[in-house]
Amino acid sequence: MLKMINTSSFCEAKGAVKKIAILGSTGSIGQQALDVIRTLPDRFQVIGLAGGKSLELLERQISEFQPRMFYSSTKPDFAYKGEFSPMEEIASHSEVDLVIIATSGKAGLSPTLAALRAGKIVALANKEVLVMAGEIITREAKSHQAQIRPIDSEHSAIWQCLQGEENKPQRLFLTASGGPFYHYSQSQLSEVTVEQALRHPTWKMGKKVTIDSATLMNKGLEAIEARWLFTIPFESIEILVHPQSTVHSLVEFVDGSMKAQLSFPNMRLPIQYALCYPERLSNPELPHLELNKIRALNFEPVDYDKFPCLKLALDAGKLGGTYPTVLCAADEVAVELFLNKRIGFTDIARIVQKTLEQHQGIAQPSLEEILAADAWAREYAEHSSPVSYEAYPKRRRSKT
Amino acid sequence: MLKMINTSSFCEAKGAVKKIAILGSTGSIGQQALDVIRTLPDRFQVIGLAGGKSLELLERQISEFQPRMFYSSTKPDFAYKGEFSPMEEIASHSEVDLVIIATSGKAGLSPTLAALRAGKIVALANKEVLVMAGEIITREAKSHQAQIRPIDSEHSAIWQCLQGEENKPQRLFLTASGGPFYHYSQSQLSEVTVEQALRHPTWKMGKKVTIDSATLMNKGLEAIEARWLFTIPFESIEILVHPQSTVHSLVEFVDGSMKAQLSFPNMRLPIQYALCYPERLSNPELPHLELNKIRALNFEPVDYDKFPCLKLALDAGKLGGTYPTVLCAADEVAVELFLNKRIGFTDIARIVQKTLEQHQGIAQPSLEEILAADAWAREYAEHSSPVSYEAYPKRRRSKT
Repeated sequence: MLKMINTSSFCEAKGAVKKIAILGSTGSIGQQALDVIRTLPDRFQVIGLAGGKSLELLERQISEFQPRMFYSSTKPDFAYKGEFSPMEEIASHSEVDLVIIATSGKAGLSPTLAALRAGKIVALANKEVLVMAGEIITREAKSHQAQIRPIDSEHSAIWQCLQGEENKPQRLFLTASGGPFYHYSQSQLSEVTVEQALRHPTWKMGKKVTIDSATLMNKGLEAIEARWLFTIPFESIEILVHPQSTVHSLVEFVDGSMKAQLSFPNMRLPIQYALCYPERLSNPELPHLELNKIRALNFEPVDYDKFPCLKLALDAGKLGGTYPTVLCAADEVAVELFLNKRIGFTDIARIVQKTLEQHQGIAQPSLEEILAADAWAREYAEHSSPVSYEAYPKRRRSKT
Repeated sequence: MLKMINTSSFCEAKGAVKKIAILGSTGSIGQQALDVIRTLPDRFQVIGLAGGKSLELLERQISEFQPRMFYSSTKPDFAYKGEFSPMEEIASHSEVDLVIIATSGKAGLSPTLAALRAGKIVALANKEVLVMAGEIITREAKSHQAQIRPIDSEHSAIWQCLQGEENKPQRLFLTASGGPFYHYSQSQLSEVTVEQALRHPTWKMGKKVTIDSATLMNKGLEAIEARWLFTIPFESIEILVHPQSTVHSLVEFVDGSMKAQLSFPNMRLPIQYALCYPERLSNPELPHLELNKIRALNFEPVDYDKFPCLKLALDAGKLGGTYPTVLCAADEVAVELFLNKRIGFTDIARIVQKTLEQHQGIAQPSLEEILAADAWAREYAEHSSPVSYEAYPKRRRSKT
């Protein structure tokens, strides 16, 4: 068996120091991106960091990585010699080579556009950016010769499988772990608590993504994202349930050959690949798979009836226009309501469905129209809550 | 679901007509290569055919494909306007672009060298060529800028997975179906009949390869072949039992990422890929996989005690020099003895082991030394038969 090269050998590898900005550095992906950078100190320099509400963590990150710019949604009172700059400025700063968009929801949209218009490499973890504005984002990337690299494990898998292929894929298969409730009955699903939903069997992620994984909404958003990243007809994207989260996605070609990318479920691999591409670097923090210990990789068709969020997302993807924006916005609101224990688990799909049904879609929307649809959907979803605040705790109370 | 493009669209695809010679056209791979060419008539022209003992089949192939040259190990008496030429001449003829080496045993060695020295693309199905003379073959290919493309499904899988990767793989995993006897006990193995051994669960192949698959010798030969095709240390090649023959092999990189190639077990895919590379063409004859119907892909460690041929092959591979040649030669003889019901199934390993033990190895042998080792091993194996001709039928008779 080959031993993994130890950290010191990183220095010998080729490649100049890449200057990185991380937007959303205090979130799960942001922190793991800094973990990767920490193990590859000769390869990367952090130029900008932007965090959310975790000011304490952001302060620690700033003092460790000494970026020349930083941002936080609430202006911090701690003294730091770096410049407090808006995310758009950090993302488009002349010194920055690569911007990691690890924000969540629509927060990533405007900085992503700024980065692309400045011709930066964008490593994208914030899937709502492409779901909401895929057409605009990919058009801007193309016209400014900017590159979008996926960080999601599924899209990274597809991207890796397409390397060196001059042939367009015929089908993409996104794998889904199925989440913690894949074998629950309909009635069990309606009783799922926030605490249960936050326990994902294979991936450690932020709260919003964890709930989206449990409803399979996440997989629908990924399908829409994949369509833009790989310019493939939406109908050519399929979902496969794969409980082991080992095969991260697959690509099928016209000759019937498929390629799959496999690895230990660890987000640091797709993050590192996006940062180092096309190079692959040894990293002692990245575990290697032993398939003869895993023994079985299983694949199942998706049960769309049990996971209506996935169906809603695929339908919105097919409709296109402002529908995916509305899907995203309504889901963000509904997940927040669920996390705040104001609605039940199966109510998430109901709120999203109601909001989509009430929406008057616009084809090929402008950015303004997208933002308007987003605002409308948030407002609508917030007030369409199918279970009233008063009714909900009663129902819950009887369970605890 | 995307429909497969129908045959007529082949014409629209780019690429000039490739001129092909097939050595071993009447064998299993040769026939399937002609199947592929038959479905892609605008892409390929058959310039030369060489067959073995099946003169009748060769005659039919000649009358269908009208090659300008042909060869048969026994000169046929049928009238045909093409030129009867030695395989070396066909392989190196100025009109030929690509030579498929689908012969078996050492018969492919000399024509492969001729093709490489003439700078041809060699699509190699005859694994003994690289096992016997890997160092010479790869050196000649390099110095004449000739290309070797694998046709074995495992090596084709690895080749496909390495496309576009500027990073050397860290490990290669060759998958093995395990053959029909993977769950047999030691005593059941010693009673295996020729008829049982010729029934392979997933692949339809020639007799020699089918027996080698049942003893797992085949996987050992493939490991040695892989070392030369992908210039990787022999210790970095591992074997995984994978009963479904769906994942054809896997590649692991330093970052812990693995890529796998999957397809329906059908040799026409790797043949077509080797012929069309880097293009992939739709072919209605190539079935597509549906993983949600397969449901499970299993992986197991190899039981080396039960399959000593694999262990012998890996040991010979590690020793290098003339040992792999001796392994090949002894195995060819032993399999022939088994097919002729002169020895039992488990005697194959005994003969190969005895021959290897008696061999005085030569490091970095010349072609002459390789051929001498081959001749010695054949002679030795033929006479070291551990069960005498007289004893054997008696033992068999009691079973039937």
